[in-house]
Amino acid sequence: MNAIFARRSIRNYTDRPVSEEDLHDLLHAGMSAPTANNARPWEFILVTDKDLLAKLPMDNYTLAVKDAQAAIVVCGDSTKDKMMQGALNVVDCSAAVENILVEAADKGLGSVYYAAFPMEHRVAHLREVFSLPENIVPFAVLPIGWPEKAPEVSDRFDVSKVHENCW
Amino acid sequence: MNAIFARRSIRNYTDRPVSEEDLHDLLHAGMSAPTANNARPWEFILVTDKDLLAKLPMDNYTLAVKDAQAAIVVCGDSTKDKMMQGALNVVDCSAAVENILVEAADKGLGSVYYAAFPMEHRVAHLREVFSLPENIVPFAVLPIGWPEKAPEVSDRFDVSKVHENCW
Repeated sequence: MNAIFARRSIRNYTDRPVSEEDLHDLLHAGMSAPTANNARPWEFILVTDKDLLAKLPMDNYTLAVKDAQAAIVVCGDSTKDKMMQGALNVVDCSAAVENILVEAADKGLGSVYYAAFPMEHRVAHLREVFSLPENIVPFAVLPIGWPEKAPEVSDRFDVSKVHENCW
Repeated sequence: MNAIFARRSIRNYTDRPVSEEDLHDLLHAGMSAPTANNARPWEFILVTDKDLLAKLPMDNYTLAVKDAQAAIVVCGDSTKDKMMQGALNVVDCSAAVENILVEAADKGLGSVYYAAFPMEHRVAHLREVFSLPENIVPFAVLPIGWPEKAPEVSDRFDVSKVHENCW
């Protein structure tokens, strides 16, 4: 089964380190997502420093990141996309995030999609941790680590969501 | 090289039909994307009818869909997500779209991401074609077909977009 179907949200990680090569591949996957007008309006903060990882939880729902081996903070540059007229391009950032999650699953790595934007307290927390410039919007935090246990596999096809040749 | 890196925007398709099984797998990939609070706030219109495909172009930039063998119209249900309080969950829809595009690339199929939302004229066009209810927001149109020529491969890693342990 391929990684798209195998991907699950993983919140518990072992102490096994994640190699630089694997982290590079995850970033490469993010940058391989399509963007409107090829604007590529994202930036990626790669966090491997333990003290910095400990500062990443944005609230009680995102604590798992402090026990990860690394994290990728996906940010959007609100000035980089004419179409959005200075707003964050949520579509482009989301596609990059999903590529990273699928690439992680393909390697057997675990991650989970912790949205920052549009939750104000999460955005504010990350702005402070990284002293981000105004135009850089923290979009999501993706903890990276080797899963403590193998994720369960389930079939999530739902025929009721398919409409053939009409609504 | 895996499908994430191989994916390209493909706008020219051959007459070779796309099997029902392949279309099923694409829809399955879309439904395998993560969604906030597991709300799964999307619906998929699968278009294989030639007359209906001919009606799908939303403007002069999206004409390729009429020459595709099929199309998947990804829609969001604005009532299905408490977090978004009645707004479209753009993140969830984008992740589903990216999964479909990567799964298509994995099969050697071609597609391209034609955003509908937030462009009002495109949303209005699809609302009319499908007589969509108010809460169903047309999000993207994905033409599906076998590529007329093999896509070029290029490395899109950009080291200037990586920030290690700091902004």
